[in-house]
Amino acid sequence: ELLAHVRLHLAPKPLLGRRALVTAGPTWEAIDPARGLSNRSSGRQGYAVAQALAEAGAQVLLVSGPTSLPAPVGVERVAVQNAQEMLQAVEAHLAGTDIFVATAAVADYRPAQSAAVKLTKAELGTQIALIPNPDILAQVARHAQRPRLVVGFAAQTHDAEALAAAKRQEKGADLIAVNDVSQPGLGFGSERNRLVLIGPDGRLDLGTADKLALARALVAELARRLSS
Amino acid sequence: ELLAHVRLHLAPKPLLGRRALVTAGPTWEAIDPARGLSNRSSGRQGYAVAQALAEAGAQVLLVSGPTSLPAPVGVERVAVQNAQEMLQAVEAHLAGTDIFVATAAVADYRPAQSAAVKLTKAELGTQIALIPNPDILAQVARHAQRPRLVVGFAAQTHDAEALAAAKRQEKGADLIAVNDVSQPGLGFGSERNRLVLIGPDGRLDLGTADKLALARALVAELARRLSS
Repeated sequence: ELLAHVRLHLAPKPLLGRRALVTAGPTWEAIDPARGLSNRSSGRQGYAVAQALAEAGAQVLLVSGPTSLPAPVGVERVAVQNAQEMLQAVEAHLAGTDIFVATAAVADYRPAQSAAVKLTKAELGTQIALIPNPDILAQVARHAQRPRLVVGFAAQTHDAEALAAAKRQEKGADLIAVNDVSQPGLGFGSERNRLVLIGPDGRLDLGTADKLALARALVAELARRLSS
Repeated sequence: ELLAHVRLHLAPKPLLGRRALVTAGPTWEAIDPARGLSNRSSGRQGYAVAQALAEAGAQVLLVSGPTSLPAPVGVERVAVQNAQEMLQAVEAHLAGTDIFVATAAVADYRPAQSAAVKLTKAELGTQIALIPNPDILAQVARHAQRPRLVVGFAAQTHDAEALAAAKRQEKGADLIAVNDVSQPGLGFGSERNRLVLIGPDGRLDLGTADKLALARALVAELARRLSS
């Protein structure tokens, strides 16, 4: 904690005066008060991105789904449960934001119905009907208050970079960070990751490292793009 | 941690020589490597029960779904993801067990199919077909190696005690600890809880307290029943 404060003050500040908004963690889409649909995400990579942005001098708001992580030093956090709440929190804070990084593992679908009291097994039935969730990355990329840099994350287990390139274009993002979760010891729940940045001008391999080191490499690249 | 060791050694040992098996946490029922169905459970009440059993002198095995909690001092832990793995781990360790406490929030249904690679939205579709999971509490209660005391937990948001009394009979458990999660500040994710024990001979209100204090009260009652 002390070290985190020292690092926060001593790191170079290429993003001083910039505002950044980061989403992180899974979303929880309730079926009833006990059951839900979710995504595997510890939130670690997103929290590391928020920390690296703060270290680089940005004013950082972290919109986080349910995780057990403490907010990084110097980062303001808004806690949300589901995708709709996450979109709402993001839109409420978009004005004046320079950098948006969507690391959250947002559920693409939610149950069509959500019950206020716990369902019996019979009431639950044997099918869950799904309806699409809002696409937060695409909505921010097309927003009237679009930040200058919009960065998505893609966790893919196959054809990672090709799918990410398609996702980048379809959603209108500037960059997609590809997170290959098919390799053991990387990604979900792990401290380490491998990130490849996909942009309009090709790919940038940030390598395999711990999530904070990768977050700092990502933030250095974002600062370079913002200043160029 | 040091305090935990001291407490472990100084507490009275009514369960010395007994073996206990505790399930805790949610289960994660995978739809694909990223998506899944789950239950809201921090695992805290179950971990507290495991700790209280160890303090009382029992040899404790904790079969835990995914949580971010450290194993209590003196407790052996087996980590599992889904209900089938949880049942398997429980059955593998049932021989010689005197006390079984099922605190885990086991998903009653799992997706009929689980994909090895992440599904596209189109592949996911708009319905998830469910199939029933094994009922771990009922299977243990009717097992050839049934422990002398079989205790279930019920998280209910309405008609809590009536539903728990029915569940106790239907599943063949000795006791059901009712956990009323409808009250704000109690239950899910909270440090505090309210527990009422439902047995063949009526109800015992353990009151509202932090989860470890309730766990110790529960364990004291279990020790009383085992020795009578």
